[in-house]
Amino acid sequence: MIASKIKAAVRDVHDFPKQGIIFKDITPILKDPGLCKEITTALAEQLRGLEIDVVAGIESRGFLFGPSLAQLLGIPFVPIRKAGKLPYKTISQSYDLEYGSATIECHEDALLAGQKVLIHDDLLATGGTVVAASKLIMQLGASVAAYSFIISLDFLNGRQRLVPYGDQVFSLADY
Amino acid sequence: MIASKIKAAVRDVHDFPKQGIIFKDITPILKDPGLCKEITTALAEQLRGLEIDVVAGIESRGFLFGPSLAQLLGIPFVPIRKAGKLPYKTISQSYDLEYGSATIECHEDALLAGQKVLIHDDLLATGGTVVAASKLIMQLGASVAAYSFIISLDFLNGRQRLVPYGDQVFSLADY
Repeated sequence: MIASKIKAAVRDVHDFPKQGIIFKDITPILKDPGLCKEITTALAEQLRGLEIDVVAGIESRGFLFGPSLAQLLGIPFVPIRKAGKLPYKTISQSYDLEYGSATIECHEDALLAGQKVLIHDDLLATGGTVVAASKLIMQLGASVAAYSFIISLDFLNGRQRLVPYGDQVFSLADY
Repeated sequence: MIASKIKAAVRDVHDFPKQGIIFKDITPILKDPGLCKEITTALAEQLRGLEIDVVAGIESRGFLFGPSLAQLLGIPFVPIRKAGKLPYKTISQSYDLEYGSATIECHEDALLAGQKVLIHDDLLATGGTVVAASKLIMQLGASVAAYSFIISLDFLNGRQRLVPYGDQVFSLADY
């Protein structure tokens, strides 16, 4: 079972990035090429039957598996990055953090109107970044076909926040 | 020829990140799944005959092809990240930028002493980050087996700066 393999590999790091948070460290997964391959395959299998034109991955950890997934599906990969990182003309969305706010961007020519986009990140927490990514995609006239995560922290209710943007939310290991 | 395909796909963005710089934008490559596959294969082919235990990729753009390359070689991938991003115990190296300095980190258990490491990034410019990444690897008792880039800006002399750390410097498209 892929979920139990992922949970066995993930390392819990206490009090990161701050006191009281238990961070799910996926770097041990990256050390296991067999598991990485299984994960990419399992991510693709969950999407079987869905029409997806593009994988959009969220910087930085969404770049670790997103391009391999796009490769396996034989479709383009679009990077969604932190403000100021993409060199060409961009569109942006800001979202609230516990203290302050953050902004993510994509190139204005990253997607064509009407394209069906899979949004990928390694982990779904509260969903704030992913909602902002969904808005970026809709800003370009494209739509969210589905969300794909390796891990979902279901106790943070991120899935519910995503429903208004796209109701297909997949993950391989849920907490 | 892979070099001409890469050069045809790359977009020159003038005055990014600042006045006078012509930035090589690789996002059009990511939109072409066939070219992405050719690039990953070509990166692996350049390494034929070398003994490599681990691919270390530099955040963020080194995460776009680094994990696929590690997957193709069937070996672990280690992320080298900006300061404060990795959750577990880290070691760090700082390096000078034109104004100020930057710090990169890897987990202290990312490598075993004696391992032969391929350092991968999308583009070699002056080599400052890559030299710092090399020092991180040596700090853990591992060694640099080779460097692998998609693009090298040879007029910035990055290759010469890498020679003291590892003399195998590969790239697919040189400017």
